Amino acid sequence: MLDYALLSALAAVIRTGGFDRAAQQLGLTPSAVSQRIKLLEERLGTVLVVRGQPCRATESGLRLCQHVETVALLEEDLQDALPAAGLANPQVPLRIAVNADSLATWLVPALAAVPERLFDLVLDDQEHSADWLRRGEVLGAVTGYGRAVQGCDSTPLGALRYIATASPEFMARWFSGGVTEEATAQAPCLTFNRKDRLQQLWLEQAFGRDLAPPTHWLPSTQAFVDAALAGLGWGLNPEPLVAGHLKSGRLVPLRANLPLDVPLYWQQSRSVGTALANLRKAVRAATKETLQPIAVE
Amino acid sequence: MLDYALLSALAAVIRTGGFDRAAQQLGLTPSAVSQRIKLLEERLGTVLVVRGQPCRATESGLRLCQHVETVALLEEDLQDALPAAGLANPQVPLRIAVNADSLATWLVPALAAVPERLFDLVLDDQEHSADWLRRGEVLGAVTGYGRAVQGCDSTPLGALRYIATASPEFMARWFSGGVTEEATAQAPCLTFNRKDRLQQLWLEQAFGRDLAPPTHWLPSTQAFVDAALAGLGWGLNPEPLVAGHLKSGRLVPLRANLPLDVPLYWQQSRSVGTALANLRKAVRAATKETLQPIAVE
Repeated sequence: MLDYALLSALAAVIRTGGFDRAAQQLGLTPSAVSQRIKLLEERLGTVLVVRGQPCRATESGLRLCQHVETVALLEEDLQDALPAAGLANPQVPLRIAVNADSLATWLVPALAAVPERLFDLVLDDQEHSADWLRRGEVLGAVTGYGRAVQGCDSTPLGALRYIATASPEFMARWFSGGVTEEATAQAPCLTFNRKDRLQQLWLEQAFGRDLAPPTHWLPSTQAFVDAALAGLGWGLNPEPLVAGHLKSGRLVPLRANLPLDVPLYWQQSRSVGTALANLRKAVRAATKETLQPIAVE
Repeated sequence: MLDYALLSALAAVIRTGGFDRAAQQLGLTPSAVSQRIKLLEERLGTVLVVRGQPCRATESGLRLCQHVETVALLEEDLQDALPAAGLANPQVPLRIAVNADSLATWLVPALAAVPERLFDLVLDDQEHSADWLRRGEVLGAVTGYGRAVQGCDSTPLGALRYIATASPEFMARWFSGGVTEEATAQAPCLTFNRKDRLQQLWLEQAFGRDLAPPTHWLPSTQAFVDAALAGLGWGLNPEPLVAGHLKSGRLVPLRANLPLDVPLYWQQSRSVGTALANLRKAVRAATKETLQPIAVE
């Protein structure tokens, strides 16, 4: 078996990014932490931590860190059987992958409903967040992928509704003759990053094909809304974030009655089901109000 | 010399993430784009594009893409001398690196003041955004690094003021006996990502040393504010985003009169100074109102 005292030191260094902070969390001196990492690296015959500001894990180091955190969460399942053993690991965060728009709309209240936990959020597009789960780098994910990833349970949450919006000034400048195919191919749009296909999907829905308009790249949900308000471009914004602006007229829909609904699922690893049980409940409760119902396959 | 017709096809594929979209932007068929990329790869003897959803650049492909975009921006300097040549390249975005908190507070109005440009924003911590400039991957950066990067001009902008904030409920739960060293070492805080040292810097300012408290990891400026409001933890939030919440009492400062001021600089490549001139003006105007004055060294 591996030496879990050494592994705990490794996880703390990678989690906190430094030997000093890890030492403080573990109640050790920095040199004791450093010795444990060195010993572990010698025994395993490979470098686990790239020393720097901050310290980073090598690929092997990351894999080990994920392993020891999973084991720590598994230990919590023994808590009922061994109440005096002090098996809670409050320093170990639950690492989950989520899309930025979920974080910006409904996720924070769900996290706040599980106050006994620390969370480590990884942001990725809903078409890619399940990959983190497949690679074993997170224990749960908010994803657009409905079929259960191997070793995971999938729960349908509902669809996040997006509206293609722009400012009235932008509409007057670019779409004075209507939102035609020609005008839409010219007007600048907003794209989150290279993985974001929402604008493309909406264009295909509206015009039967992608028009590949010129685009700004803005990797932030709130900046997307701000940029639409400021007239930089049009983009697909989550309805919960723009409902007020649509009502007040600061933003207008490019087309009435043409929303884009993106189904979302919660997937979580079966190996640490107990540690994630309360989070799943909170996620379902939070999405019931914010997301649109979807037909379950 | 390199073949810039082929290079333009490469840049369009990498920019749009796909052969179809690149073809539409260039007014070519997808197979013509594909042939140009293949020809370029044959001539240069290396793979430039990893085909996939989305297509990604290899390291050499990225380097070439940056080069052709810089050349396109340089061509604009000839516009006055050759007004009939049609040298504007409206499809080529200005790639700049910014910290997330600048994007969330003052950057969007600055971008909107330069409506003739498309922007491609890369997010990174203010202690790391200058690295993108050093590596030649962006043409401008909002950074905490004041000394001019080689080949660049540096302009001091002012300091973004941060306040350590939490909800009143969080304060009652964790700090009922005051924000003591002991309580602060226990209370969960918020950290943006492994590069974010703001909480650590504030702790050193408040207590003379880092206390390495347990932390959530939340890589989003707005989620940071939302999480503080929801009582997940305390964290350093930009004053412009929390001034209203502090006034209404939904958030309270951990310590009165202990802000953390983070100086920010605008650095831009001298090679494409003309293309960036209007942006620098807009950045200076936007920060004059939002940032605190700093002593210029």
